[in-house]
Amino acid sequence: MAIQTNTRIVLAARPQGRPKPSDFRIETVDIVEPGEGELLLQILYLSLDPYMRGRMNAARSYAKPVEVDSVMEGGTVARVIKSRHTGFAQGDIVLSHSGWQGFALSDGVGLRKLDPATAPVTTALGVLGMPGFTAYAGLLTIGKPKPGETVVVAAASGAVGSAVGQIARIKGARAVGIAGGAEKCAFVRRELGFDAVVDHRDDDFAAQLKAACPDGIDIYFENVGGPVWDAVFPLLNDFARVPVCGLIAQYNVVAEAGVDRLPALMQQVLHRSLTIRGFIQREFADQRPAFYRDMAGWIASGRVRYREDIVDGLEIAPQAFMGLLEGRNFGKLIVRVAA
Amino acid sequence: MAIQTNTRIVLAARPQGRPKPSDFRIETVDIVEPGEGELLLQILYLSLDPYMRGRMNAARSYAKPVEVDSVMEGGTVARVIKSRHTGFAQGDIVLSHSGWQGFALSDGVGLRKLDPATAPVTTALGVLGMPGFTAYAGLLTIGKPKPGETVVVAAASGAVGSAVGQIARIKGARAVGIAGGAEKCAFVRRELGFDAVVDHRDDDFAAQLKAACPDGIDIYFENVGGPVWDAVFPLLNDFARVPVCGLIAQYNVVAEAGVDRLPALMQQVLHRSLTIRGFIQREFADQRPAFYRDMAGWIASGRVRYREDIVDGLEIAPQAFMGLLEGRNFGKLIVRVAA
Repeated sequence: MAIQTNTRIVLAARPQGRPKPSDFRIETVDIVEPGEGELLLQILYLSLDPYMRGRMNAARSYAKPVEVDSVMEGGTVARVIKSRHTGFAQGDIVLSHSGWQGFALSDGVGLRKLDPATAPVTTALGVLGMPGFTAYAGLLTIGKPKPGETVVVAAASGAVGSAVGQIARIKGARAVGIAGGAEKCAFVRRELGFDAVVDHRDDDFAAQLKAACPDGIDIYFENVGGPVWDAVFPLLNDFARVPVCGLIAQYNVVAEAGVDRLPALMQQVLHRSLTIRGFIQREFADQRPAFYRDMAGWIASGRVRYREDIVDGLEIAPQAFMGLLEGRNFGKLIVRVAA
Repeated sequence: MAIQTNTRIVLAARPQGRPKPSDFRIETVDIVEPGEGELLLQILYLSLDPYMRGRMNAARSYAKPVEVDSVMEGGTVARVIKSRHTGFAQGDIVLSHSGWQGFALSDGVGLRKLDPATAPVTTALGVLGMPGFTAYAGLLTIGKPKPGETVVVAAASGAVGSAVGQIARIKGARAVGIAGGAEKCAFVRRELGFDAVVDHRDDDFAAQLKAACPDGIDIYFENVGGPVWDAVFPLLNDFARVPVCGLIAQYNVVAEAGVDRLPALMQQVLHRSLTIRGFIQREFADQRPAFYRDMAGWIASGRVRYREDIVDGLEIAPQAFMGLLEGRNFGKLIVRVAA
């Protein structure tokens, strides 16, 4: 196979609010041959995740922003097609962080070999990867669900939310999901086995959520922000925990005006002894071995199910990503780059 | 001593915003003789604390509100003047929660005997009591100061703040206090030994705070809320902890409008992995023995100093309490009811 060029998608401009097609640019560049100790990877699958919206901003965050004119970052499953690295052989399948492109060089640092016989390799981007681990570490370490408690999570059909609810149930808690639309709600209730599900698009969403949580909310796993918060907030019990791993509904918001909700928040933090705790999964890296073991076991026994939404072709990534921010995906969104 | 009547101060009306004199009412009632198993207490000292403002509201909180026409609640140091309880003798000095009055019946539950030889009995209302324990438990359990970290606390000359900063220093952290006015600031810096102090009344308060925290803020012990928060918030480091034990600056606020600061808060909670955790000291009751031991030792060795602001006469309690909410006290505010 004579590879000549690498197609890649770079950040063309920092979005103001909602990203638009012109914020991305497709480029074709020559492939660089691997040097001593390097590998050439062909990307098979690219993960699209909400956190990427944050990387498009210049603002201070837990990670460096993607520079304008640089390749959009992202987790990937790749095949080693040339190796001058003693740890990897041609044909190995690896988890890498190669970004939105067809090929990438690597020095092997941070790569994890995947065994296609153990699990579909795409799960390394979802339920057995960063999103699944985000759910696991955030729920168990910060949320600390106790039997009988009520755990609420939004985007419940998504990569993180679906794992949160199912792990909550494994720990004996009651899982209430929030999702958008009848199809996703049915999936969450019937396929994932949540105890209840509420459609945030319904006019009486807040009332439905209250009815679905007759004993209040002990853990709200926050991955969306926005209007869902306003429905959740009055239902939080004393000593409720709120792990915050994402705020997809407000990533595109430029500025807000109106009633200042901060004083009321702090007042209830005080009166109800609430815990609000932001995190990224990286902080809990020492729990990864336990996660792989537990989650693989739960998948094998059918206690955790997952859904993938796989779209074809790198060129479609910007459009698919914009859809993700609107909740148009259904399950873990993955781009098949080559296969 | 022929005691006939008990003077007491009741909640006359629920305040709208700032409490005013007509929200309180002085009453004189007959003293009831103790029955079998009961004690009659004469209140010597009444503690006035910011949390009492919350009890004057009807709103949901961690504690039941004071009912209209009921005695204002509060911690007290009292002398047993009649005892029909086997556990207590006439003349015993006890810590009780008898409220804003001259005399009270008790069944002995929740009383703690005080030894005037060990420490001045008023300290049981301050540095060796609820405020000191609030500082101790909140700082050590939620804040978890590490050597070299920066701890910021407002109302730094007050009962809680003064203990927070001094305990932070004992744990090897850097203590930065916020106080109102030159006299309090000088006290915090020179008498309490904080590493730095900033006057929140200065026009360039935010700039001064930033200069006083060159390495950012790792722990903000929140006991005031209001404008101080806006100066603190941009300085919080990644993984900063914010124990919230009070919001005195907003207790009197009825409603807020303007820019909604909630989305920015949640965004930074996420980006900086912040922990915001409301608490009341009661939650950590199992740490009280360690607190009494540690704090008594620190006071004995001069590592923790404290200041009391003692005013005379129960009738003055409403006025002194209104002054407390304005920061007009200087040190732990205590009413000498009898002595």
